[in-house]
Amino acid sequence: MDNKQIKNDAITRRSEDFAQWYTDICKKAELMDYSSVKGFIIYRPYGYAIWEEIQNYLNKRFKESGHQNVYMPTVIPESLFNKEKEHVSGFAPETLICTIGGQSELDDRLIVRPTSEVLFCEHYAKVISSYRDLPKLYNQWCSVVRWEKTTRPFLRGAEFLWQEGHTMHETEEEARTETLKMLEVYDDLGRDLLAVPFIKGRKTEKEKFAGAVETYTIEALMPDGKALQSGTTHYFGDGFAKAFGVQFQGRDGKLTSPHQTSWGVSTRLLGAIIMVHGDDNGLVLPPRVAPIQAVVIPVAANRPGVIPAARELYDELNKTGLRVKIDESDRSPGWKFSEYEMKGVPVRIEIGPRDIENGVVTIAKRNDSTKIQVKREELAKTVVELMETIHQEMYEKAYRYLLDHVTEVHTLEELDAALEKGGYAKMMWCEDEACEDFIKKTRAATARCMPFNQTKFDEVYPVCGKKATKVVLFAKAY
Amino acid sequence: MDNKQIKNDAITRRSEDFAQWYTDICKKAELMDYSSVKGFIIYRPYGYAIWEEIQNYLNKRFKESGHQNVYMPTVIPESLFNKEKEHVSGFAPETLICTIGGQSELDDRLIVRPTSEVLFCEHYAKVISSYRDLPKLYNQWCSVVRWEKTTRPFLRGAEFLWQEGHTMHETEEEARTETLKMLEVYDDLGRDLLAVPFIKGRKTEKEKFAGAVETYTIEALMPDGKALQSGTTHYFGDGFAKAFGVQFQGRDGKLTSPHQTSWGVSTRLLGAIIMVHGDDNGLVLPPRVAPIQAVVIPVAANRPGVIPAARELYDELNKTGLRVKIDESDRSPGWKFSEYEMKGVPVRIEIGPRDIENGVVTIAKRNDSTKIQVKREELAKTVVELMETIHQEMYEKAYRYLLDHVTEVHTLEELDAALEKGGYAKMMWCEDEACEDFIKKTRAATARCMPFNQTKFDEVYPVCGKKATKVVLFAKAY
Repeated sequence: MDNKQIKNDAITRRSEDFAQWYTDICKKAELMDYSSVKGFIIYRPYGYAIWEEIQNYLNKRFKESGHQNVYMPTVIPESLFNKEKEHVSGFAPETLICTIGGQSELDDRLIVRPTSEVLFCEHYAKVISSYRDLPKLYNQWCSVVRWEKTTRPFLRGAEFLWQEGHTMHETEEEARTETLKMLEVYDDLGRDLLAVPFIKGRKTEKEKFAGAVETYTIEALMPDGKALQSGTTHYFGDGFAKAFGVQFQGRDGKLTSPHQTSWGVSTRLLGAIIMVHGDDNGLVLPPRVAPIQAVVIPVAANRPGVIPAARELYDELNKTGLRVKIDESDRSPGWKFSEYEMKGVPVRIEIGPRDIENGVVTIAKRNDSTKIQVKREELAKTVVELMETIHQEMYEKAYRYLLDHVTEVHTLEELDAALEKGGYAKMMWCEDEACEDFIKKTRAATARCMPFNQTKFDEVYPVCGKKATKVVLFAKAY
Repeated sequence: MDNKQIKNDAITRRSEDFAQWYTDICKKAELMDYSSVKGFIIYRPYGYAIWEEIQNYLNKRFKESGHQNVYMPTVIPESLFNKEKEHVSGFAPETLICTIGGQSELDDRLIVRPTSEVLFCEHYAKVISSYRDLPKLYNQWCSVVRWEKTTRPFLRGAEFLWQEGHTMHETEEEARTETLKMLEVYDDLGRDLLAVPFIKGRKTEKEKFAGAVETYTIEALMPDGKALQSGTTHYFGDGFAKAFGVQFQGRDGKLTSPHQTSWGVSTRLLGAIIMVHGDDNGLVLPPRVAPIQAVVIPVAANRPGVIPAARELYDELNKTGLRVKIDESDRSPGWKFSEYEMKGVPVRIEIGPRDIENGVVTIAKRNDSTKIQVKREELAKTVVELMETIHQEMYEKAYRYLLDHVTEVHTLEELDAALEKGGYAKMMWCEDEACEDFIKKTRAATARCMPFNQTKFDEVYPVCGKKATKVVLFAKAY
């Protein structure tokens, strides 16, 4: 009988080669696979199921706040795409273009959607005519294509899955409120579902979305010290609306343009989960997003009574509403332990002849590798409680790491030290783009955001000596 | 006060111009809109919400039977697509092809997926190696593109939403069982959710899917007498598996090819719902699939107490779990009555000063235009029960129509009479494709299926006088 734990030497150690460790988990935990289409990945059942949990959470939140799902065409005529100049120039270099349909050359070439602002605007122009038609709060779940040269699973791909919200409002104030409200929803998603803490803030002019007036962001911190932009919300003003002729009759009877927002998160969030929580044994999933929350593994399964006892545990856990699996396959317990560790299942339940004899069950927690033994009759209650405990433990660990990696800096030397340590360098900035560029060029670090907390701590910007007006977080980033 | 019902003269009468009536409902009930991409439609919130109810039902059924969702690339390399000859020739004429990516010409052109058999096969070849890896029961929710010349909303479009199941099995028997099991799931969907009865059967060789060994179908009947193929399941044998090198080591240690199925339903089902149940006042939705199941309309809303009373009803209904809406807008009750009739909301609840005085509420049923008055305190219970009653009434009405339009025919004259009446002509057939072609060419009717009930009623095929071996249903079809 082999029930000793086998170390997962199947993957590279995180400390040895962070990038390879990450890719190993993506593959070995069966989250994704490569396809024969360069840069396009296959979202395998286990990876897709995590995305479905994210979808469920967000769909509920979106619908509670009055948003409705729609579906727009997967391709955009080039002529339509070219209507908003700033937007076009941001996306044109990475478009995938269809030129042949039904065996004939197309007059107006079709771009596989990289984002759908223009389609939403075109539609809104048709369905909005009065203040009574506002707000329009639409969202779309789909995939988008961006022809990226270098790709990494979930983090940067030629195709990724996302949701894109596009809303139209009567007033600027309403639209601005929406932009910030959806950022809060994303922040909640991180805290409540993914156990990933975010820093919220506004993007600088240089870093904002092509065509937006203002862009807000949630930034996560990876254990290699790099920031990961995890979601953005944009306030557009009425620029797109004017370019696409969206107008409505206001309460005063006058024709005017509505104010617009868009916002999105993508399967990039899977990358955040993998990196923030994973370890040398593979994936570590926060319970609320885990496709399998608990796995029951019979030990010495051929001994009489073991399989029936394991099935009883499974049934009992299943009834609580937990997502449970039982593995009755003829693999060794050691193999199974490794397998579900690799897959990051939050809780493993072991039951063997001795446990049955003693009326106990062994529970192994994936997040901190601790084991506890509980009385048979306390299992269900314990596991349900553990889901909460583990979530909190994982969130707090990530949050402590984040707090520990925001360093206030006053000089360029301190900036270098902070970037060397990893994480965010919090610095006062003069709002001059040239000074932002200087950091990017000399340190390969970008302005991640101007955080909501703008308590000033310096009078001048360390780079140029000019008056410092904004608190900015600089970091290396994905 | 205007609470008289206004007739929806906004749409063409069904008896006048069936096709125009259908398109009018699609637009006026706000199910879809046209986009600037020819043949591609916009699935508007109300239409998309119906699709989401279908997704919820099927996802539950799929997962209960062990299926897992995945996501495959949205484009397929032409070289990969060309691997299975029969399949290619079926789809090549209507493909949309990308030739430019990231501003450079592509070496291997990319086809926007018309269906994903080849991608699934390529992936299966990588992840299947032992009988232990079987069965693989994958499903994908996505859109597919087929460059159709003439399009109609939901029925035939350049892009539609669907699910495509692709499974691999150890044995032929298992795969054949899966093919029939999923057909049953589709049949249940029609009966239990859409209130649309289907005829189940096998497609003839001529009508089966490109590359399949056998195709099964669910066929619905529209009120213009035409059949609508509403979903299909395919048994592939091991043809694709061999073409793509999918192999596994069997229990006997030998390498062998797995047996494959695929199956799908699409947003075409929305077309079936519209046509089967709709009337001259617009859409009529079966309650279980209706995005709004009941709407509360205050009558004489400016009178004291009306709005609070209406809100009370709304809250009460909401608590039962029904999908309820209250319309407090400043439109007239007559306008609102028309609006929610057009949108096919199963139940309308009217409450005005007199109702409040008398402690009653008026309920109007959309499906048969009857009104009932109930005591205030019986409202919630009544509406919940009505959901079941209405579903049954709608299903039975459609079922009676279907039964009434299956005509057993023994001669070509009877065939003509049956097609003239509309619906299915049930005929004995010799299984000669030439004889099937003859009906298609001379009557523009196709063999819809060989129904599961094969009780023979004739010895010879009326067309050629040869021995008749199969019962076939011929009909004109969408």
